[in-house]
Amino acid sequence: MDAYLALVSKREVRAFQARPIPDDTVRRILEAGRLAGSSRNRQNRRFVVLRDADLIARAAGTVFSPANLGDARLVVVVLVRGKGPVAFDAGRAAQNMMLAASNDGVGSCPNGVGDAGALAELVGHEPDEDAVIVLAFGYPASPRDPESRSPDEWIDAADRRPFDDVVEYL
Amino acid sequence: MDAYLALVSKREVRAFQARPIPDDTVRRILEAGRLAGSSRNRQNRRFVVLRDADLIARAAGTVFSPANLGDARLVVVVLVRGKGPVAFDAGRAAQNMMLAASNDGVGSCPNGVGDAGALAELVGHEPDEDAVIVLAFGYPASPRDPESRSPDEWIDAADRRPFDDVVEYL
Repeated sequence: MDAYLALVSKREVRAFQARPIPDDTVRRILEAGRLAGSSRNRQNRRFVVLRDADLIARAAGTVFSPANLGDARLVVVVLVRGKGPVAFDAGRAAQNMMLAASNDGVGSCPNGVGDAGALAELVGHEPDEDAVIVLAFGYPASPRDPESRSPDEWIDAADRRPFDDVVEYL
Repeated sequence: MDAYLALVSKREVRAFQARPIPDDTVRRILEAGRLAGSSRNRQNRRFVVLRDADLIARAAGTVFSPANLGDARLVVVVLVRGKGPVAFDAGRAAQNMMLAASNDGVGSCPNGVGDAGALAELVGHEPDEDAVIVLAFGYPASPRDPESRSPDEWIDAADRRPFDDVVEYL
């Protein structure tokens, strides 16, 4: 898919098909996250991958909106540690993963962590690591073909604040 | 450009040509940022755009590495406000902007804010807004053609932690 089309057509997907995500697509998603830039190239992050339905169900119990993970076929817990803009950098890596997913027809949605203790117990991460976000992935229950619209059409149709409210030219 | 190639070939660029960035490319960069998803679609962010050389020079004095902004032809200050994962969401929007730039041959690099007071004075943002990052854009002084390598070649050549250090399958 064209990169610009991927950027402007990405929408959050919270309901997924039962169809599993192939290994090579999972790998591309994770590589896109690993390759994302970070402050001073510190890469203060780690990705814990859940594909087993029971583990995903347990993870669902730890996020603010468990239903978003209910049908997910892949869950990636993004862990950060150390100083610097780790949440900002996690956002960059997460966006890369979700865009790589879109490019392979896979939908996604970030989920905030409601019960950090339960998630830490599930993931077994180090005490100095924080789970900053939980990404849910799967083939969309209601697929949309990015190529069905032009980038400008996707932009016009987006539920976003108007350009002039968001952008200020100094 | 293919979306996956854009994701894995993106590298930070800190030295830029004098050549200005056309208005339509600037617009695409900003639209990609505006369209990025955010927690509960709150869009708690705003982008302040600097294209004037004097303003960019002043902005350079407010970031940790002023030299990164020295040759920039476009600077975007990302402001956030309110509750929720605003830094994470800012990372998503910034990554979208930098990927849209790459797609048009424009390099970029995020810069941490060293002197928040001076930047606030320059940008004139609201007291409840924080400048979370300053993005520098320009045509790379040493351009690299993403198409010159395959995605796997870009991945293999990347200065990143090994896959097995970053990814854990539960």
